[in-house]
Amino acid sequence: MFFMLNELRRDYFLDRYVIIAVGRGKRPNDFLHIGSVEVEGGKQCFFCPGNESSTPPEISRVEEAGKWIVRVFPNKFPAVTPEAGEGSEYLMPAYGRHEVVVETPDHDKSVGDLSVERIAKVLEVYTERVKSLLTDDKVEYVLVFKNHGRAAGASLAHTHTQIISLPVVPKLVREEAEAAERFLQEKGSCPLCDAWRKEDEGPRAVYGDEYIACFTPYASRSPFEAWLMPKRHVRCLDDLDVDERLSMAKGIKLILSKLKGGLSDPPYNLYFHVSPAGDDLHMHVEILPKLSTWAGFELGSDMIINTMAPEAAAEFYRQK
Amino acid sequence: MFFMLNELRRDYFLDRYVIIAVGRGKRPNDFLHIGSVEVEGGKQCFFCPGNESSTPPEISRVEEAGKWIVRVFPNKFPAVTPEAGEGSEYLMPAYGRHEVVVETPDHDKSVGDLSVERIAKVLEVYTERVKSLLTDDKVEYVLVFKNHGRAAGASLAHTHTQIISLPVVPKLVREEAEAAERFLQEKGSCPLCDAWRKEDEGPRAVYGDEYIACFTPYASRSPFEAWLMPKRHVRCLDDLDVDERLSMAKGIKLILSKLKGGLSDPPYNLYFHVSPAGDDLHMHVEILPKLSTWAGFELGSDMIINTMAPEAAAEFYRQK
Repeated sequence: MFFMLNELRRDYFLDRYVIIAVGRGKRPNDFLHIGSVEVEGGKQCFFCPGNESSTPPEISRVEEAGKWIVRVFPNKFPAVTPEAGEGSEYLMPAYGRHEVVVETPDHDKSVGDLSVERIAKVLEVYTERVKSLLTDDKVEYVLVFKNHGRAAGASLAHTHTQIISLPVVPKLVREEAEAAERFLQEKGSCPLCDAWRKEDEGPRAVYGDEYIACFTPYASRSPFEAWLMPKRHVRCLDDLDVDERLSMAKGIKLILSKLKGGLSDPPYNLYFHVSPAGDDLHMHVEILPKLSTWAGFELGSDMIINTMAPEAAAEFYRQK
Repeated sequence: MFFMLNELRRDYFLDRYVIIAVGRGKRPNDFLHIGSVEVEGGKQCFFCPGNESSTPPEISRVEEAGKWIVRVFPNKFPAVTPEAGEGSEYLMPAYGRHEVVVETPDHDKSVGDLSVERIAKVLEVYTERVKSLLTDDKVEYVLVFKNHGRAAGASLAHTHTQIISLPVVPKLVREEAEAAERFLQEKGSCPLCDAWRKEDEGPRAVYGDEYIACFTPYASRSPFEAWLMPKRHVRCLDDLDVDERLSMAKGIKLILSKLKGGLSDPPYNLYFHVSPAGDDLHMHVEILPKLSTWAGFELGSDMIINTMAPEAAAEFYRQK
């Protein structure tokens, strides 16, 4: 046990509380055998080479030796569509584009299995797509996210990331941008610059180099939650230089490989939080393994009960 | 199909958006065979009569003919504990009490199977417990919630409700109270009084009488989401009079019976939102069936994609 009492921890800058419940407390080994419930696919996988005609028309690809290694196309069942329409106080068309990035032709590989250079290439593809989607002046925000495993919402097994452009800044991102502004006014620092300085060598540190910090956040919402961020105060993927992108790829590979190899490939969600236009939010990546059920308490309160301390998660990630 | 385009709908008063995704749109019948994944229990159920000594010491009970029909005791694995401790800017002890209400001795019954009078009696028990927990001056809020089915977070099959007292007002409740105050300033009405007046006879109406309104909210986050509220602008359970409590019991029975009988007893979460002290939030009940996975998009944005329109859900609930 890490602590004697359950703790109510506040996030670095959001007004968000988490109960670290050591009374129900778990250690990394308790999650060892929770495998990723496998999703459908395989034989007739739409994302595999040879089945390119099953997807909507391709938007872009990266090739190597004449074959694609990354492919981008529109989602067949989009949550948002690029049709304009009338809005009102309570209603607007769900305007936007919904794209899919398939990061490897190999059906059985996940992103953590790719080389650091290949992951950096994938980050470049995300960067280009976000830039392109932001040129639409009806778009206010672009969210990049990955669902891995059925319990985390993936409906196809072949690894892929989704990119959705939106006519509004989503609630959580808006809250982060506003909280960052308040934090700056009150404490004279960006809250995320402040967070990595606090965490970089502490009990929640996972990986750090000149460019990138990776740690398990103090008020982690889920067992093994991990954050990655460039140390330089940058706002979006496009701000990353070559070294920062490579370091970020290293960090992503570390976290995803440990989840797959050190546990049993649990389901997880990953998303990029970049700054809305006009705000100054420090970009970062949040990875949340899906190892608990957010139930009536979480839904009714927006407070989360997490049964594993982030200090134990960091220890797990640091193990060779 | 109800609509041609996916819609981005804003909540009555929160700055919360939902995408009603008719492109992936579902009808009530699509959920007919999603059963509640049964939870452990049965033979050695801690909540069944005869096993009273397996629970922590009883707090209260309601008896009928010399036997208990409702029982309240502390949660064996509490998320919060009544131990004081030092706090800081980012940390406070997870102070509070975590109680369990078992609403029937019958292992196989759910709350919707009880008579209206018995459900009203159960509401009285919640009321008493909340009142009692609020007498502790370190407590800022008390949340009453139910998890039904394993996918909704229930770890025991025997129906029960949890009550947690907290040293802070939870984020979502704080947001509702603040948004209600803003709405009142801007529009001169309580947003929930305004909501039921709009919904009472419309396409999202489910049940209404002199005392209670029940409807599927305009920006429903999940298929079959339902809200119940007293028509009178009251702040907490204790404000309900006998007639209002009976009507609320009727509404709860209607929703829970339809979920169990009209679908296949899907998992759901239910919670009571009452007003924090000093605020003027109109109390209401929110019931959210767990029929979809909130994944990377939802986690990263706090926007929800809902694949079934609330108008279809209301139609389902209204069917005899």
